[in-house]
This record gives sequence, structure tokens and C-alpha cells, in this order.
Amino acid sequence: MTFSSQDISARPRAVVCLSGGMDSAVCTALAVRDFETYALHFSYGQRTEQRELASAHAIAKTLGIRQLLPLRMDIFRQIGGSALTDTSIAIPDAPAVEEIGAEIPVTYVPFRNAHFLAAAVSWAEVLGAKKVFIGAVEQDSSGYPDCRPAYYQAFQQLICTGTRDADIEVVTPLIALQKREIVRLGLELGAPFHQTWSCYAGETVACGVCESCALRLRAFLDAGATDPIPYAGNRP
Amino acid sequence: MTFSSQDISARPRAVVCLSGGMDSAVCTALAVRDFETYALHFSYGQRTEQRELASAHAIAKTLGIRQLLPLRMDIFRQIGGSALTDTSIAIPDAPAVEEIGAEIPVTYVPFRNAHFLAAAVSWAEVLGAKKVFIGAVEQDSSGYPDCRPAYYQAFQQLICTGTRDADIEVVTPLIALQKREIVRLGLELGAPFHQTWSCYAGETVACGVCESCALRLRAFLDAGATDPIPYAGNRP
Repeated sequence: MTFSSQDISARPRAVVCLSGGMDSAVCTALAVRDFETYALHFSYGQRTEQRELASAHAIAKTLGIRQLLPLRMDIFRQIGGSALTDTSIAIPDAPAVEEIGAEIPVTYVPFRNAHFLAAAVSWAEVLGAKKVFIGAVEQDSSGYPDCRPAYYQAFQQLICTGTRDADIEVVTPLIALQKREIVRLGLELGAPFHQTWSCYAGETVACGVCESCALRLRAFLDAGATDPIPYAGNRP
Repeated sequence: MTFSSQDISARPRAVVCLSGGMDSAVCTALAVRDFETYALHFSYGQRTEQRELASAHAIAKTLGIRQLLPLRMDIFRQIGGSALTDTSIAIPDAPAVEEIGAEIPVTYVPFRNAHFLAAAVSWAEVLGAKKVFIGAVEQDSSGYPDCRPAYYQAFQQLICTGTRDADIEVVTPLIALQKREIVRLGLELGAPFHQTWSCYAGETVACGVCESCALRLRAFLDAGATDPIPYAGNRP
């Protein structure tokens, strides 16, 4: 879907991974300040696939990105191995927030972000974009190995050794931020939090109790802000 | 598709990328000597998609691999940028063999092997496989950046930083071989060359003139062997 057809080709291009969650919305809001931005969204069999795609479309439109490319990926549906894509594994309630990240949870999707970044780099090569944005967050995150700076440094090396011109940079502007700082940054930038979706379990109202909801609710609370999306049981 | 249901779970597992070409067939023949082998095949909009998939199925059956997982990828169809996936870009005839690899050709599919390896690593994490085989070849290859040792070293670092147990190894047994050595190795191992497909252009008979055919024909010639697949115009 292309939102804008005017010639703004004088601006440098960037590709952003837009899941539809709060971090990706803030990351996209940062990208559009400086770049003609192309967004990738992935439907990979995650439980809230439809809701996330709708969020990505809405955020892309609000932020005026140049094109949203929705991609479907079969592999995670077929191989299983994660509570996000395998309905035989229950989505757990979050542990106490201070314990989140202590171990890799069952919601870890094996090596998922490598698929996302590979797609973003492929598209960047075709578009001539020199930046690939992804809203990974190390602290306050769920302990996923593919959300750590060393992982993105390794991916940068992969780009330098495996692309035509070796000149695309992976940009992780949120990686060192606390979730409350991401909320504040998003409010400053006008990121459309009301259009984002983070819950692992529900598509209509957020459950409020999964790890992703727990981190999000805590982030808004700590930032002294109100989360604009609906929660089950009128949380928060 | 599962070819074998007997319990051979005592053998360690490996995942192999099986395109259906001669290199991947030899690589798979190496893997099955030591591992319970799971093969991934990718349909990504390449011109000879149907022929390659048929080859992968046939090779997998001949070599007794445990399971072949065929995956479809939308992205290259959608973003274009390669003569292999974009029919508006012609497949060129090969330059003189000594000039192949001097520059990156239009058949380069942007950052393609990162998609293949990401899928292989994801599946390896779920299967508990500790090896991921890919039949990349640096010398005698077409100059693709994602066929060089430095690229696979970077991917190894990506695995070490971005997987649950950081214990999966990328294995590139052919990377330093000449193509003629790969033919000889395949003949020793009983790799089913008659079931492989390398041509970029044709699906019934190989064209004999594209870069991939030129490299293959030269490899068999240099090895003193006969290529068993049919070529247009009765080549070689």
C-alpha cells in the first residue's frame, strides 16, 4: 500500500520493521523525521496476527510512511516451537515485572528477528535505502536473545560481508532505553499509541496479564501517562 | 514430507539448505553420512521454481533425508531487483568462464542467503539440531557476496548472539572447493546429479548458456565426467 505519491525522492530512504507494537511505532516515528520511510510488517502465524496488521496499517498511515509492505511467512506456523505461533503452548501470565527477562520465555520465536532484518536489508538493497530501523529494546524486555546490542553488531557485520555495496546500517534507536523513556519519547514525537497493539493473547481488548501487557502497563505507569488502548477488566 | 519413520533419533540432527542444485545435493550427501538430516527448500519466485522443487524432493528421497520442508517466500516476488525473480530483467548469457565472478551479476538476489540461513537456524533450534549445512561455494562462483567465508563467519556470530543456546554451527563444507572438486566429491558420495537442476532459465532442458549452466558444464568437463542432465542443442 502506498500512501503518498508526491516526489520526495530527494530525502534519503530508510526501511523500518513495523510490528504494530509500541516500540515499533516510536521507532517509525523517529525514522520518518529524517527519511523517506518504507515499512515492513510480518504475519508469521502469531496469535494476534490480524490485529497487529491492522495496527501497522493505521500507524503507517498516521505517520505518513511511503509504503507498507505486508509479508506472510510460513515457517513459524510449520515448525512451531513458540507459544506465540503454536496454540498448543499456553501464553503464560507475566511473572513479577522485576523477574521478567531472567530467562528466555516460551514466547520466544526462534531466531525470528533475523528473518525480519533479512527482509529489511533485501528491500533496502533494492530501494537504495542506507538505513534499516528496528525497535528492539534490551532493558525492560523479555530476555529474548535477539534484542541485545551484540546481536545487532553481528548483524551489521553480516550486512558488511553479504550485500552488494556493504553500506546499509542497522539502526536500533531504542535498544538502550527503559520502556518508560520510550513512552515519553513517543509522546514527544506524536507516535500514535492508540493505534498500537502489544498483547500476545487478545485481538479486541488487551488481556493485561501477559508479559507484553505487563511491560507495557508498567511503562505507561512509570512514565506518568495513560495507555490509550482498551484492557480487559478495565485495566489499568 | 517425511521419508522415514523409523527411530533413528540416536543420531545427532542437522538441517541442510537444499536448493536442488548440484552443490546442495553434494552438501546434503555429506550431511546424511553423519546426521539425521532435515532439509529446507525455498520457493521464492525464482524462474525455475517448479523444477528446483521437484529436484529437491527427488534428491531428498534418494539420499534418505528425514524430512523435507518446502517453504514459500513472498518477498523477492514483491520487491524485485534480481533477474532470477523479475522477468523484466533478462537472464544474461554467461561471460567467458574466466570472467565469471569479476562483478556481481544481475542474477544476485539481494541478501537471499540470510533468509535461507535464518530459516535453517530457526528450525534447528526447534529440532535441537546443532549443525546447519549450506552448499555455498566461493571459488568458481558467480561473485555473489553471500558466498564468501567472511559472510558465514559473521552469520556464526549472529547465531552465537541471537539464539537460545548459542550452540548451532554453520557448516559450509564446499566453500573452498573448486567446482570440479565438487563434482568428484559428489561422484564418490553417490550424490544424484541426474536429479539436480542448475539452469537459471529453463525447466525442461537446461539452456547451457546462462552463468549457472556455464559453471556446471565447465565443472563436469574439468572433472572428466559427464553431466547426466539434458541440455538444449545436445550440449555438452
